[in-house]
Parts: sequence; structure tokens; C-alpha cells
Amino acid sequence: MSDTLKQLTDLLEQRKDAAADSSYVAQLHAEGINKILEKVGEESTETIIAAKDYALAKQSAESNTDQQKAALISETADLWFHTLVMLSHLDSNADDVISELGRRFGVSGLDEKAARK
Amino acid sequence: MSDTLKQLTDLLEQRKDAAADSSYVAQLHAEGINKILEKVGEESTETIIAAKDYALAKQSAESNTDQQKAALISETADLWFHTLVMLSHLDSNADDVISELGRRFGVSGLDEKAARK
Amino acid sequence: MSDTLKQLTDLLEQRKDAAADSSYVAQLHAEGINKILEKVGEESTETIIAAKDYALAKQSAESNTDQQKAALISETADLWFHTLVMLSHLDSNADDVISELGRRFGVSGLDEKAARK
Amino acid sequence: MSDTLKQLTDLLEQRKDAAADSSYVAQLHAEGINKILEKVGEESTETIIAAKDYALAKQSAESNTDQQKAALISETADLWFHTLVMLSHLDSNADDVISELGRRFGVSGLDEKAARK
Repeated sequence: MSDTLKQLTDLLEQRKDAAADSSYVAQLHAEGINKILEKVGEESTETIIAAKDYALAKQSAESNTDQQKAALISETADLWFHTLVMLSHLDSNADDVISELGRRFGVSGLDEKAARK
Repeated sequence: MSDTLKQLTDLLEQRKDAAADSSYVAQLHAEGINKILEKVGEESTETIIAAKDYALAKQSAESNTDQQKAALISETADLWFHTLVMLSHLDSNADDVISELGRRFGVSGLDEKAARK
Repeated sequence: MSDTLKQLTDLLEQRKDAAADSSYVAQLHAEGINKILEKVGEESTETIIAAKDYALAKQSAESNTDQQKAALISETADLWFHTLVMLSHLDSNADDVISELGRRFGVSGLDEKAARK
Repeated sequence: MSDTLKQLTDLLEQRKDAAADSSYVAQLHAEGINKILEKVGEESTETIIAAKDYALAKQSAESNTDQQKAALISETADLWFHTLVMLSHLDSNADDVISELGRRFGVSGLDEKAARK
């Protein structure tokens, strides 16, 4: 798994067990699965809207599309983040998902891991 | 970035430029941003439904929840995959998103990268 | 309730009890609540995308936005239709929803009903 | 169109042109199409979650499912309401959507309208 994703996963696990008022993540877990899934749906919609805005800015050859690109990356990060909280809430994690993706596409990361040694 | 995610990102870039009838990814790019975003929305909904089914199976103490867990991981993988295609279509990638997450949470993967050397 | 909505509600109830291969509605009921909710999510996404396309066509003062407007109305009709099938599947209907809206906004349709007599 | 829907449509048109701080509807219009569409996506997700909760309560033969049914109707009303605001924002309305549904299903409400005279 990604070093950053691995560290974020560890951080999310720590915050899952923290007091509900100690962090946004702890609060989400305290509010329960429906609240977490509402956030997944909300961020999915915001990602789609940001992607449309960025696609249309690119298409109309606006001189500067940096803001729309930053918004798309920010919304996609929100979406991934809330799916990570969802996975954590249900005792799964990013590693399960990335292993599934690796299995489907025959890319296991093993070659690079071997190359590092 | 994750080794697996990195390899998958490379694979998606290759397929982006391939003939439209050569792969599912090439076909999505040919159909355009609306089709790709419809898939993001569709997989988001399927992830939410799978999460509800798994949460309720866990809650009712069913003896075996493996099938519901596998469905959740599969739907989340579908969701992440289609966001990767979306990012590729708009000339961004997973690295942008993971860097944003790392920045927000102060987890840059740098410690582990340093430790590997 | 709307005359058209009332007739459509009656039609949906008839089709709910029909053989699964006799109509799209009967097939949705046979496939179950998850399939119906996937369609609600899918049509919600398509409505959002159509609304962005229409809003941007209007904004850029395109000479003819009829096609984008027709697409928006078509997708919204798809969304409402699948929520009607969802309500029917769960033994509710449009009347429940419209009564709730009327109650919230203090518009009961009663004045007009009285005026008709 | 429904008497209630007709009155609600008229009310929404009035509020569309009101000062932004005078009502929730006026505020939505002032914030613009992206905010309105975010609400459509959010309420779609909440409808799907409420439908899952109601379907599962019915399935497990809980003695009282009134609360879950009320939640489903409330969320569906929220979803329809925000699509009405979206249509109003884009110079369309419920009548366009209901006419489209009537056309598709061959139910025009005309028989009932004729019978009223």
C-alpha cells in the first residue's frame, strides 16, 4: 500500500478509538454508519460537479484552469477520505481495496517491492 | 504513491491512448466525461448500498458476513477505479489526490521512504 | 394529487403485481430493493450532469439550448419515476410525499379543490 | 398537475425572486446551481439510506416500522423539493416533468380533467 495511505490508515484507526469530541473522524464514528455514508454520497456529488466545471473550463480554453483543477483534486480527496472512514468503521481498510484492484488488473506492486530490496 | 496504485496509474495512462474498442478504459475515454461521471455516481450508490447490507449483517450477528464484506470491497474498488479513470481523463492522477490527503493529515510517507534507503 | 401522477401511481400498482417478464416495472420489483435504489442513484447523477450541461449552455448564451433542456426534463422524469417505483415497492406512494410537501409549505391544494366544485 | 404541486410551484417562483436572506429557497438560488445540485445529490443519498433502513425493518418483521416509513417519505419529499428548486432555477417546472411522464406512460390526466367538468 502507499506509504501515505498506510500512515493515513494508521491515523484513522487511532482516531476511531478516540473520544467522540476529540476529532472529526471520532465524531463520524460516533454518529454511525448512516452519517458516514451520507458524507460519501455528498462528496461523490461534489466530485462530479467539480469534474464538470473543470472539464468545461478546459474545453472553453480558459486561460487559467488551476482553480478548477485544485477543486477537483480536493473533492476527490474528500471522497476517498470518507470511503477510508467507512472502511475503518466496518473493520476493513484501503489495503483490502488496493489488493482487489491489484488482483483485477494483475498489478501487484510486487515487482517494485522486489526492486527496492 | 502505492506500488499497486502507481502501476495501475501507468496502466490507465497506456489504455487512455489505446483504440476505443481495445479495452473498457479506452471505451470510457471515448464516450467522454459524462459517461465516466455517471459511472462514478453509480458506483458511489452501489458502495453505499453494499455498506448498509454489510453493516446490517454485522449488527444482526449473522454467523457469516464474508459475502457482504467482499461485496463492499468490490464496490469500493469499482468506485476508486472509476475516479482514477476520471482523474486520468482530466490529466490528473492518484498521486495528486494522495499528496493532498498527505498534506491535510501531515502524513507524507517521507519517514517510510527515508527508512527504506 | 396530480391527475397524471394519480393515473401513473395506479398503473405502477398494477404492474407491481404482474409477471416479472411482462414489463420493466415488474422486472424492477422482481430484482428487489437494491436494484431499484441503484436506479434512483444512477438517475440522480444523470440529472445532476444534465443540469450542469443545461446551466452552462444557458450561461454561454448558446443560441439553442432546447436539447439540453429536454435532457434535463427527461432525466428528472427518470429520477421521479424510479422514486415512484421505490415508494410502490415499499407500500407507499406519491400521495404520501405530496401530502408531506403540502403540510410543510402550507399548500394543501384544498382551495383549488374547493374552487372546482 | 397536482393542486398541491401547482401551489408549491407558484410559491417557489415567488421565493425565487425574493431577497436572498428572506427564505431558504431564495438563499439556494443566490448560492447558485452547484449548491442546489449538491442538495439534490445529498437528498438522493439520504433517500437511499432511509429506503434501506425501512426495507430491512419490514424484512425483520419489526413490530413497528412507522418511524422508518416516515423517514423515507420525509427524505423523498426533500429530494423532490430540491429537484423543484433546480427546475425553477433553470426556468422549468414540475409541469414539464409530469407531462413527460404522462407522455411516456400514456396517462395524460385528461380523462379525469374531462370528468371534472
